[in-house]
Amino acid sequence: MALAPERLPQTREERLNALHAIDTDVHQDLPPGGAKNLLPYLARTWHPLVESGLGFAARGWHNMGSGRMEDSVNEKDNLCAGDPDWVLDKLMRKYRVDIGILTGTQIGVGIQHNTPFLAALTSAYNDFVRDHWVRPYDCYKGSIVITPQDPEAAVAEIHRLGNDKGFVQVLMSSAARIPYGNRIYWPIYKAACDYDLPVAIHVGAEGTGIANPPTSVGYPSTYLEFHSDHSQTMMGHCTSMLTEGVFEELPNLRFAFIEGGVVWAPSIIGRLDRTYRAFKAEVPWLKQLPSEYLVGHLYWSTQPIEEPTDDPQHLLDLLEMMHADRTVIFATDYPHWDFDNPMTAFSHFPASLRRRIFVDNVVDYCGPRILESHR
Amino acid sequence: MALAPERLPQTREERLNALHAIDTDVHQDLPPGGAKNLLPYLARTWHPLVESGLGFAARGWHNMGSGRMEDSVNEKDNLCAGDPDWVLDKLMRKYRVDIGILTGTQIGVGIQHNTPFLAALTSAYNDFVRDHWVRPYDCYKGSIVITPQDPEAAVAEIHRLGNDKGFVQVLMSSAARIPYGNRIYWPIYKAACDYDLPVAIHVGAEGTGIANPPTSVGYPSTYLEFHSDHSQTMMGHCTSMLTEGVFEELPNLRFAFIEGGVVWAPSIIGRLDRTYRAFKAEVPWLKQLPSEYLVGHLYWSTQPIEEPTDDPQHLLDLLEMMHADRTVIFATDYPHWDFDNPMTAFSHFPASLRRRIFVDNVVDYCGPRILESHR
Repeated sequence: MALAPERLPQTREERLNALHAIDTDVHQDLPPGGAKNLLPYLARTWHPLVESGLGFAARGWHNMGSGRMEDSVNEKDNLCAGDPDWVLDKLMRKYRVDIGILTGTQIGVGIQHNTPFLAALTSAYNDFVRDHWVRPYDCYKGSIVITPQDPEAAVAEIHRLGNDKGFVQVLMSSAARIPYGNRIYWPIYKAACDYDLPVAIHVGAEGTGIANPPTSVGYPSTYLEFHSDHSQTMMGHCTSMLTEGVFEELPNLRFAFIEGGVVWAPSIIGRLDRTYRAFKAEVPWLKQLPSEYLVGHLYWSTQPIEEPTDDPQHLLDLLEMMHADRTVIFATDYPHWDFDNPMTAFSHFPASLRRRIFVDNVVDYCGPRILESHR
Repeated sequence: MALAPERLPQTREERLNALHAIDTDVHQDLPPGGAKNLLPYLARTWHPLVESGLGFAARGWHNMGSGRMEDSVNEKDNLCAGDPDWVLDKLMRKYRVDIGILTGTQIGVGIQHNTPFLAALTSAYNDFVRDHWVRPYDCYKGSIVITPQDPEAAVAEIHRLGNDKGFVQVLMSSAARIPYGNRIYWPIYKAACDYDLPVAIHVGAEGTGIANPPTSVGYPSTYLEFHSDHSQTMMGHCTSMLTEGVFEELPNLRFAFIEGGVVWAPSIIGRLDRTYRAFKAEVPWLKQLPSEYLVGHLYWSTQPIEEPTDDPQHLLDLLEMMHADRTVIFATDYPHWDFDNPMTAFSHFPASLRRRIFVDNVVDYCGPRILESHR
């Protein structure tokens, strides 16, 4: 069931004002059958690699309850989020989320074995999501999932789907073997900018496939440790993005850290700004302090946000240090165990900051198409 | 030239009050000839591995000026800190540092090739430092450098030197292949606790020898990036130390992060506390919130501290969130390029916090022997 387009406000201003929340991290699932649903979208040569199971390395860190929030399992198919109407009911309407940006379950394709297969699988997945989720529902916006381990294939995929207004970002795995500021990735960012699309990275595939261990010092022992270590993957990319000069090369590039924590950012910019003053000669492409590239370029999704034990004000202090009124975007991570309820999250924040995080910053991040009907 | 012992105050209280600053990171160097100075301390079988150069992997990231601060080079031998009297003059007296904890230049032995050689080299190095720096000078305190890649050898080295009051900590490289909370290292911590010695880890060997890449997503491109990424190595170990239960096993264990940044700690504890509530069953050995293990167990050295560009108050806010009045210890990193001058550093801090950082927290960290004469 789709939201009737005639009910949507008509001007950009009206549409913006009508929004309560945009969720930047909705993990829609494949229906029963899993990856076999992708077979109609996939060249026959690759079918054996899907029919016998994808063969992706399992993560191995035990997250109790398969990572699903308690009331998110559809009894009909024992899936969390395999049915768009069900998600419409259980997430969008229940929690007053107006727009959900779909991040799915295949982000890790960028860091598995067999690159040509992964590129084909990624295209099939994007097509499936377009046909079954994006096209029929104006409230769902797609991500162009790519395989950054093969920049050429990734660029081709962006060009293939970039004009489709139903896709509002490019999405890749934070697990990687080369930090994302590196020049080998710049063609990907150039392609994204050609369509005014931002690029997001999302955690979860750390330590799987062809990835490095999840930390620079090896493998964690528990899911608790693994989960917390995700911030470090993001930090490696963040430092790289801020030092390699990509934002000078592509001034319209917008880049988001999804589900990798938030308030580690102040430590990075304090560190980089200080060190930059001594090592300017090494990075002549930078034209300003590393911290000055944050606003307008880097975004952090809220879930999971580091909630201080001692004093809730600490979180607000940390957010101020990273210009959260321009850099932080809302996410529930539905239907995972650590879902943030948009009706109650950040209730102690000033209303103006909440508004920036829940709506305005996401609109800045995605650009104008997030407010448009794509049907 | 040694400080005359008769000038030292006699009671613990008097000694404590007489102190202005304890520097937890003084990189004394070997004299001209480098590692060949260690030959008299080393079994003949290993001599060829020293005479032909140590063969340690060079770091490859260019840090202009070889990492030395401008006025730190002794013209006599073109060394920074190869002569204890020279350091007495150029660091200790010039900047009113009362006690310097020696961290040296061989910390990376824990992550190079050929473990048995490294264990022998480490013992030779510790003996050299004892004879030439620690024994003649009450103001210099040694670190027992160990090879944590071989826990048994590391334990033996701690037992060999642990009763020498001139050594005030165990020291190992932050570059590692297994996070330091892991049980394979617990015999090392047990041995340290047997002598009431704390354990410190120090950055710099990331990406060399048998180490993983310096980040979980691969190799940085510049020294600016490499230097900033050191925080992530520390964070991987910090998360591991807080989740693996070692502080329940060894309630007297004290552990310090040297030269790895400071104010990333609030993001770790906020993250871990929140996640811990959902995953208690996975870590039944923890008896309290991860953040509650900080005070009394974990310490961060100040240099390099992340100085905010926008507002100096931000640093104080961040320090409060990590209980800096009990967890942060002073360091200059002499004679490296990013030396912090103890006469001027943190002048905007409250006097009571400065006192904790410059003296009291270091005394808590090292234990009673830091106040005693060892000559």
